[in-house]
Amino acid sequence: MNRICSLLNIQYPIIQGGMIWCSGWKLASAVSNAGGLGLIGSGSMNPDLLHEHITQCKKATSHPFGVNIPLLFSHAEAFIHICIEEKVPVVFTSAGNPAKYTALLKQNGIKVVHVVANVRGALKCQETGVDAIVAEGFEAGGHNGKEETTTLVLIPMVKKAVTIPVIAAGGIATGRGMLAAFALGAEGVQIGSRFAASEESSAHIAFKQMIVNAKDGDTQLCLKKLVGVRLLKNKFYNEVEKLELAGASVEELSALLGRGRAQKGMFEGDTEEGELEIGQVSGIISEILPAGKIVKNIISEYNEALEEIIQQKFKL
Amino acid sequence: MNRICSLLNIQYPIIQGGMIWCSGWKLASAVSNAGGLGLIGSGSMNPDLLHEHITQCKKATSHPFGVNIPLLFSHAEAFIHICIEEKVPVVFTSAGNPAKYTALLKQNGIKVVHVVANVRGALKCQETGVDAIVAEGFEAGGHNGKEETTTLVLIPMVKKAVTIPVIAAGGIATGRGMLAAFALGAEGVQIGSRFAASEESSAHIAFKQMIVNAKDGDTQLCLKKLVGVRLLKNKFYNEVEKLELAGASVEELSALLGRGRAQKGMFEGDTEEGELEIGQVSGIISEILPAGKIVKNIISEYNEALEEIIQQKFKL
Repeated sequence: MNRICSLLNIQYPIIQGGMIWCSGWKLASAVSNAGGLGLIGSGSMNPDLLHEHITQCKKATSHPFGVNIPLLFSHAEAFIHICIEEKVPVVFTSAGNPAKYTALLKQNGIKVVHVVANVRGALKCQETGVDAIVAEGFEAGGHNGKEETTTLVLIPMVKKAVTIPVIAAGGIATGRGMLAAFALGAEGVQIGSRFAASEESSAHIAFKQMIVNAKDGDTQLCLKKLVGVRLLKNKFYNEVEKLELAGASVEELSALLGRGRAQKGMFEGDTEEGELEIGQVSGIISEILPAGKIVKNIISEYNEALEEIIQQKFKL
Repeated sequence: MNRICSLLNIQYPIIQGGMIWCSGWKLASAVSNAGGLGLIGSGSMNPDLLHEHITQCKKATSHPFGVNIPLLFSHAEAFIHICIEEKVPVVFTSAGNPAKYTALLKQNGIKVVHVVANVRGALKCQETGVDAIVAEGFEAGGHNGKEETTTLVLIPMVKKAVTIPVIAAGGIATGRGMLAAFALGAEGVQIGSRFAASEESSAHIAFKQMIVNAKDGDTQLCLKKLVGVRLLKNKFYNEVEKLELAGASVEELSALLGRGRAQKGMFEGDTEEGELEIGQVSGIISEILPAGKIVKNIISEYNEALEEIIQQKFKL
């Protein structure tokens, strides 16, 4: 029995990553109804809006779902209390210290998963009593670890360091990617980009189209002097790159970034001036599908790829 | 039957990457004798020295071996002719245009494999008549593609684009890594870092010790304004980083790099002032072993991981 399925009480160990401006209750409930775990991405919400999304999600699915809370976000504490009051089954925390709320959430019967990008973070999660870890590699979209360790290298290192189950994230959009992650020792996968381009995603259609049109080399990790973030290349990215090559300071980069760039790009569809957070794996994604169909496709691709690989043994 | 094994006439589809200052005839012949394909890395040699290494390699193994030739290297043309005269069974070309020598090599009965880091390069290889492709991800040591596409993302993209067999490189040092690469559609793996730290590697023992001591986050892709190269972090790297954060020009970076830095670090063991090219996967490597033992370990780990993963099917 797969430990992630047991822990989260789901049929398939596929987690839809919580993504700002993309993953509200529509996407989360669609993924949960298909047998995965949908996450409401709270990072672009205020407390009232999160409350509303949780309420709608409960109406839309009888299956477990979760909320992703970036711990450095100003509303984080309010969000934690909303999740407790609303008896949200699972909370994924990221971007902050897992020691802060894990005990409180667990006392209230909530499963806690924390996102890390290095072995040190994974060990800290385990000490803190986190139930499972998301280990996210360099290829992932959005904010990203300083070490730049890729999923292929990160998963075996984290797996070796901890005994709690590891969910692989970054670079996974297909059943083959899921099989590769499992070969490395992961027991679940967290998938963002592919669900960002799903029908139920609240991303603007212009952004979804850019995701399915993206090719290799169309994303780049940038703004490393602030907090590194992987973006689709567009006019805004080109301005960032120009400044960075010239050795721009934190102040200059912050001034260029300004406020509301992600909303402008991902939610309002300004694909020139907006910040478009997406993973490298956008280069593999070629169509906008319903989220439930994506879950089913990934499982059937996984099983097919498994059948193929069983043939490839080597005699010592 | 595995197409890489058939093509290269080897028992296991494990290629030891050609590495400057690490892979001479001792390492190449040890890998070939163990059933993989050993490559002499010509990038740090002159024509006389390459000739000597080929001669010694032939004495040390009756199995196929190859030579890696960086096509932008000043001796490339001379190396091509040496390989033809010496009837070297396989040539891996990299860092340059595969159209230049592929036909000539193939007319002389030599199998040609070319290293790429993007889909465009893979398509060009196929048009040119190259027999197989190495698709190398961002996590690889040494010189590296501009797109920064990781192995997990690159392999499925390249696999989809071409029909010739794909060898995965970057981030692979174990049987689990090999299994992950095969799950993605690769038919072979090229492994550098793990063999750089083998007994038969000609790297300095101080460099080998740094490889086995490396942890996650200890390498970084840098010098992107010149040709991006992944290095172990040391005093020299810190100086590079400082200049780059300040927006240093090509001229300033070239002046800091100077000449002979890689020889100084990797071959002479100056771990402070030298350039230490190695992959992220050094964080997984924990001991210096004979190369033949490494090949056997990888195959037995691969088979074990395959047995494990066969248990993990999901019902649709």
